Amino acid sequence: MINIVVKLDEKNLSSPEQIGETAKRLIEEKKFGRNVVAVVPPTSLLNGSVEKIVHSLSDSPAEKELDVIHSTNALVASSLLSIAIQKRGFRSQSLAGWQVGIKTTRKTSGYARIEDVNGDVIIERFKKGEIVIVAGGQGVDEENNITLLGEGGADTTAVAIGKSIGAERVEIYAELDGVYTGDPNVVQHARKLKDITYDEMLELSYLGSKIVHPRAVELAKKFEMPLVVRSSTKNVRGTVIKGEIEMEKNLIVRGVAYETDIIRFTVGYETLEKSSLANLFNTLAKHHVNVDIIVQSVMEEVKPTISFSIAKEDLANAVKVLEDHKEELGFQFADFEVGLAKVSIVGSGMVSNPGVAAKMFARLCKENIPVKMVSTSEIKVSVVVPQDDMIRAANALHDEFGLAEELA
Amino acid sequence: MINIVVKLDEKNLSSPEQIGETAKRLIEEKKFGRNVVAVVPPTSLLNGSVEKIVHSLSDSPAEKELDVIHSTNALVASSLLSIAIQKRGFRSQSLAGWQVGIKTTRKTSGYARIEDVNGDVIIERFKKGEIVIVAGGQGVDEENNITLLGEGGADTTAVAIGKSIGAERVEIYAELDGVYTGDPNVVQHARKLKDITYDEMLELSYLGSKIVHPRAVELAKKFEMPLVVRSSTKNVRGTVIKGEIEMEKNLIVRGVAYETDIIRFTVGYETLEKSSLANLFNTLAKHHVNVDIIVQSVMEEVKPTISFSIAKEDLANAVKVLEDHKEELGFQFADFEVGLAKVSIVGSGMVSNPGVAAKMFARLCKENIPVKMVSTSEIKVSVVVPQDDMIRAANALHDEFGLAEELA
Repeated sequence: MINIVVKLDEKNLSSPEQIGETAKRLIEEKKFGRNVVAVVPPTSLLNGSVEKIVHSLSDSPAEKELDVIHSTNALVASSLLSIAIQKRGFRSQSLAGWQVGIKTTRKTSGYARIEDVNGDVIIERFKKGEIVIVAGGQGVDEENNITLLGEGGADTTAVAIGKSIGAERVEIYAELDGVYTGDPNVVQHARKLKDITYDEMLELSYLGSKIVHPRAVELAKKFEMPLVVRSSTKNVRGTVIKGEIEMEKNLIVRGVAYETDIIRFTVGYETLEKSSLANLFNTLAKHHVNVDIIVQSVMEEVKPTISFSIAKEDLANAVKVLEDHKEELGFQFADFEVGLAKVSIVGSGMVSNPGVAAKMFARLCKENIPVKMVSTSEIKVSVVVPQDDMIRAANALHDEFGLAEELA
Repeated sequence: MINIVVKLDEKNLSSPEQIGETAKRLIEEKKFGRNVVAVVPPTSLLNGSVEKIVHSLSDSPAEKELDVIHSTNALVASSLLSIAIQKRGFRSQSLAGWQVGIKTTRKTSGYARIEDVNGDVIIERFKKGEIVIVAGGQGVDEENNITLLGEGGADTTAVAIGKSIGAERVEIYAELDGVYTGDPNVVQHARKLKDITYDEMLELSYLGSKIVHPRAVELAKKFEMPLVVRSSTKNVRGTVIKGEIEMEKNLIVRGVAYETDIIRFTVGYETLEKSSLANLFNTLAKHHVNVDIIVQSVMEEVKPTISFSIAKEDLANAVKVLEDHKEELGFQFADFEVGLAKVSIVGSGMVSNPGVAAKMFARLCKENIPVKMVSTSEIKVSVVVPQDDMIRAANALHDEFGLAEELA
């Protein structure tokens, strides 16, 4: 019998009806002769009243206690799913993160990370014929404090569990039924991909394609664990994410991604001597401002500037950090531009195909879309453009690189 | 610093306001220089919506899954209380049963029982200056399944924790502000006792006085752990439950208890040879019918009968068991009487004071209250009377044994 892990979508637990449907689907997998672990994300089914009480008690409740409260959410949802499976005559058991031995780092700032998973607990359950339901996104640190894994935590849990039980694959149930060459809501001719490499998926994840969390893709890559992105509601073939894919002819670019609400900061210095990339970005990092693209401009007869992009939610913090450290950072002025978006093309083939970026710029130029910033890696090119031009840019690039065409 | 355990009442967590008040009270204990663990019972604050979903999923959800769901209730309440304490500037941490190493038996039928508690976890928290909040009534079995301890589980948790941390005492916050000589709602002149022995409290607990669960009193007796019953809302002196109390002059009887909704079964046999107490009560026990008082009547020229009392909730089951096993049990007829209640007098002094039962019967006779069944132990006498006479009987006995009088 092969083992598979299914990471459920929030949709799968959004109502008693959906829970019933999800139970049926997991039972189908079991009937097919597979050992199934389902990993449950926190669900909004159960929120609301407790949050209200929390906020009536304190305006700054400790994160540790909030983690305890929030961890019960996925746990209750897991139990509900288990009950729905049992109702249909199959064995099942829900398990909290700590029960599957999910050991995490301590939470310092931000979120905990998985250090270890004890697959034996699940294997034992398989031997009893059970469909195992695990509350995702949670574990315990070395002091047995309950910890939350934060955004993408359930995806990461699924991959870590997959590794620990030697799963053949980890399926990620998603709103979309696979990974597309572009967001179908935005890119007219977007096409579902049969497969994609971890690296390509990582770039797409980081670039704003919300299907699988990058932490989970990174972990899957490390463990060489195939991921399959599938529809949370329809039983159709999805997209396989794996290490190497068969070369698809001429397909240098595999997908177009975008991210809205980008902010560009520009910091100007009197002289080159006064500017220090290291100082600036160390200071920002120390204060948890997440910087994406960085562009340094040094031209003769023009005063040197450093531009960098950040996400909207970091704006207030970034402004404060720059104000507080103006003196020591030695800059003359700082301003920022809002209303920007990032559009990216991704593809492993780029590394051996020069001229992709040039082709991209040419098309954007033809479309009269101004490029504010550029960032490249071996397998992607990102540009920052006015947000109003974002959809047009994504469609134009999708067209330019022939992504709509089905391959032989 | 001395360690104390406080077992909270459901009332203490019934609203954000109550949670705030409870936080303040625990902080007062801490300020007084005590290390405090509060044990939280499940609270109705959080019920409702999840139950509804469960029942829409299955009409017979597995107990194991219900335990998982219900265990989150006390856990969330613990977190809320911890948040309220922190809000007031004190350190606190909520802990689930498994985090305090509460190991229980496996649940076969009914409820799990505590086998071990790891006090070190709490001692470590004390060293950090924390007020520790433990979700009561829950633990894990040897397979790490979450188990519920059932009725009185939070009381029992409090005593077991008290033992594990060498607590000076375990305080039980209750609706009443102590143990009374009779239920103040029913017995007009009921008086609060300064102290009471474990054995007396056990009889009172079993006899329907709902303040402390008998399992907890038994455990406290075993560990010689003083219990203090105190008001959940007012900071007044309560009643101490301990091994030996100073003799109170002439006070043979210490309290009157009652229990409503008693049912008396009578099973009649053709001949004495056919009747078998062992068969009858083994069969009932095997089918989880809880029998209280048993009376066997063997008189010449009258056919032999066995009478026994059960609680109302066991009636349907008892009828079924008797019907199903009529043949093998060999009885001729069985009938039952409803509308009965049990009234009891309790006191350690009885053992050395003969005639207490006689005095009781005489008074009931004088009051024209018919006695349907009698049961005695070394420290109590119980009678089954018509439920309509119950309150009158309790008051008469309270008066008869001089319980209203304050002692020098």
